[in-house]
Amino acid sequence: MGDLDVIDRYLQKTQPDHLEQLKELLRIPSISAVPQHSTDVQTAARLVLDTLAKAGLQTEWIETEGPPLLYAESPPVPGKPVALVYGHYDVQPADPLDLWLSPPFEPTERDGNLFARGATDDKGQMLTHVLSVSSWAATGQPLPMQVKFLIEGEEEVGSQQLESYLAKPGVAEKLACDVIVISDSSQYAEGQPAITYGLRGISYFELLFEGPKQDLHSGSFGGAVTNPAIALARFLAAMVDDQGRIQLPGFYDSVRPLELSEREMWAGLDFSEDEFAKQLGVAGLSGEQGFSTLERKWARPTFDINGLWSGYQGEGAKTIIPAKAGAKISFRLVPDQTPAEVARQLHEFVAQHQFPGIKISVRDLQGGPGVVVNPHSPFIAAAQKAIESSFDKQAVLIREGGSIPIVAGMVDKLGADVLLLGWGLNDDNAHSPNEKFRLADFYRGIRASSHLWSQLAEVPV
Amino acid sequence: MGDLDVIDRYLQKTQPDHLEQLKELLRIPSISAVPQHSTDVQTAARLVLDTLAKAGLQTEWIETEGPPLLYAESPPVPGKPVALVYGHYDVQPADPLDLWLSPPFEPTERDGNLFARGATDDKGQMLTHVLSVSSWAATGQPLPMQVKFLIEGEEEVGSQQLESYLAKPGVAEKLACDVIVISDSSQYAEGQPAITYGLRGISYFELLFEGPKQDLHSGSFGGAVTNPAIALARFLAAMVDDQGRIQLPGFYDSVRPLELSEREMWAGLDFSEDEFAKQLGVAGLSGEQGFSTLERKWARPTFDINGLWSGYQGEGAKTIIPAKAGAKISFRLVPDQTPAEVARQLHEFVAQHQFPGIKISVRDLQGGPGVVVNPHSPFIAAAQKAIESSFDKQAVLIREGGSIPIVAGMVDKLGADVLLLGWGLNDDNAHSPNEKFRLADFYRGIRASSHLWSQLAEVPV
Repeated sequence: MGDLDVIDRYLQKTQPDHLEQLKELLRIPSISAVPQHSTDVQTAARLVLDTLAKAGLQTEWIETEGPPLLYAESPPVPGKPVALVYGHYDVQPADPLDLWLSPPFEPTERDGNLFARGATDDKGQMLTHVLSVSSWAATGQPLPMQVKFLIEGEEEVGSQQLESYLAKPGVAEKLACDVIVISDSSQYAEGQPAITYGLRGISYFELLFEGPKQDLHSGSFGGAVTNPAIALARFLAAMVDDQGRIQLPGFYDSVRPLELSEREMWAGLDFSEDEFAKQLGVAGLSGEQGFSTLERKWARPTFDINGLWSGYQGEGAKTIIPAKAGAKISFRLVPDQTPAEVARQLHEFVAQHQFPGIKISVRDLQGGPGVVVNPHSPFIAAAQKAIESSFDKQAVLIREGGSIPIVAGMVDKLGADVLLLGWGLNDDNAHSPNEKFRLADFYRGIRASSHLWSQLAEVPV
Repeated sequence: MGDLDVIDRYLQKTQPDHLEQLKELLRIPSISAVPQHSTDVQTAARLVLDTLAKAGLQTEWIETEGPPLLYAESPPVPGKPVALVYGHYDVQPADPLDLWLSPPFEPTERDGNLFARGATDDKGQMLTHVLSVSSWAATGQPLPMQVKFLIEGEEEVGSQQLESYLAKPGVAEKLACDVIVISDSSQYAEGQPAITYGLRGISYFELLFEGPKQDLHSGSFGGAVTNPAIALARFLAAMVDDQGRIQLPGFYDSVRPLELSEREMWAGLDFSEDEFAKQLGVAGLSGEQGFSTLERKWARPTFDINGLWSGYQGEGAKTIIPAKAGAKISFRLVPDQTPAEVARQLHEFVAQHQFPGIKISVRDLQGGPGVVVNPHSPFIAAAQKAIESSFDKQAVLIREGGSIPIVAGMVDKLGADVLLLGWGLNDDNAHSPNEKFRLADFYRGIRASSHLWSQLAEVPV
């Protein structure tokens, strides 16, 4: 199944080149949420497709109504399993810009890390698989199994184009695979690799509270009308009770309870609440009562305010009743909640919380269900061997609080198993200023991925 | 006591010139809240001082640590009362700029109104008194009483320099007067002039809720830490109960109750809740239960959120737990509440409402107590005659929800009566986009002010 020593030596030698390839991709501000960056999104897609072609794969640029989907595949290997690598070339917005130590789209090395928006999420992690396939080709060895790639440019805003694409006739056959491989999550901790067998889903909304037709003088009119910002605060406050329980009607009805075995496994993980709080810079943690911090962030649904705005935000005092107030809010979902059901509950909650003279509107911005897979699959066992050979440590089995909205859809559609192999670290600042990817993890990820094809090829299908 | 007919004819003739003078002053963006506009504030001060000098007054530019105070006076008239006109040449910020139909600092006439930031609050109204004094001089008539002017440039941000100035030795003697005249309020309604005998006070604060040291991925960390925006929403929501009662500890203890006679007087005023709501563009009104809308906005204390911000406010979805959240909040106060007492109550409320991992800080941005004066004073009777001669209608006695923070301090310090003669209208959009001043009211205000000196001179002192 290939000479892995040859590949390992090749990878050692090509690290500088791989770093350059990563930097080139990171220089492109492919922010899918901001329409002004749509050309950058296209440019990033083109570069990724070129890289897939250079890895010896047959590639396809799939036009959509949004950013293109990129497809690539190596030749079929009869009798062996087929893997489908999923990843994304789009990134989160970079603001607040003033908190970045180096510009988000000028990749900068510091202390063994590469800093840039998208470094870990997901350009760097996605690239490990492209470069691993490339290393087999470059050392003159055919891949021991067929590897397909499906790379999208809309993961950060909800994967709508991919969702539509998956529903098209013939697509399930084209993407047919035994296991989906995704690197868009984290190791458990520095020096402790992990395989993630569960992801949370998400429902993301924008709320707009409209009151008077324009800002009013808070002296002349204060006391006469509902202040939209106060109404919004009251609405948002009503969303969670003192025990951290979300108050949408029926919100917990379809939440799959944690298994005792999961709770025990996680209780055994090395985790210090104090260390964790210190790392985040907070004096204390909080959340839904009755669950540990790991349980709360991996396997319980949550409510967050992601953005909030109203009235005057400048310097000094402006004495107005704002005409309107808005918020971006999101819920992280766990199996078996669905975004559609949460949207329905939110609309019901809005109906229950009306304010005189205030018009409330809700915009549904994105959604995707959570997913949990079987932690005992032979693919997970194979991945563990590949990871151990590169990271020199056995991976622990964890879940992840983040969402890859499309995963549940793909698992469903393709009837495949899924491998969530995170090469990043929890403090890589995904979605935050100073996002980074540890270079050692980038190189180890490429190596582990190279070994992965060899291990997965051994799984009987 | 002067030939008022001569003055009336003179004022008729000089309307175009007076309009030009007002426009010139309105072109200067003298926004006191924004440090970048400090030169504009100085420019506005210079122009007002020049105008006072051209009115034949002896003027003085009083340097402070902030915008200058402007003082001017006409010669003493023994045996007659002394009036002190107070006004301000600074204005509120103009944003949101996109809601202005014409640029805020390019005064534009439409439908008999002049649109510009500061048109009614307070450049236009303040100027009526300067131009009325000018009209006595221009028609060769000495003022029948001494008129002093004290014009400041910091009214919109709390009058700190004026407050310090009033405390200096000799200042009370210099400003000594029998009545303070202020035009920085409104008529009761179109065609119904008013004399305002009460103003609310204000306490204005900025709140900052700080959580994690930077924005966090809401997937990876959601459920683990307190979201600062949620903490802020819960805090703000706790500030008012379902009956619209403010929950600061002891907030209502020193609130002077409304007199039955006031409630009866106002109940007799022409006021339609439906019309009022329609004018503001809201489907319904709300506020503290047990009080009418006029009572709530004139004579009851209120709480407002003036600004709110946290996290991502751009397009689309960004899945973060914001590192911090902030709000600008204010309370309108009534006699006998004091800003110091409200600040103390707010700090106590903060102490009662703590959240794990959240640091709350409070900045005190401005404050001033409310004031209520005797509605039966001879100065009010004299002002009623002057108003009736210019507006052809008797003024009603009202209170006003807005604050002129320094009024209470001046009344206190100088032991004088006060006349609040509003020439503006409630829909003049003070503090809002498209602020305006009806030109007919500008001209009537100048005329009423010209007659005022004649009437006030008759009051025995």
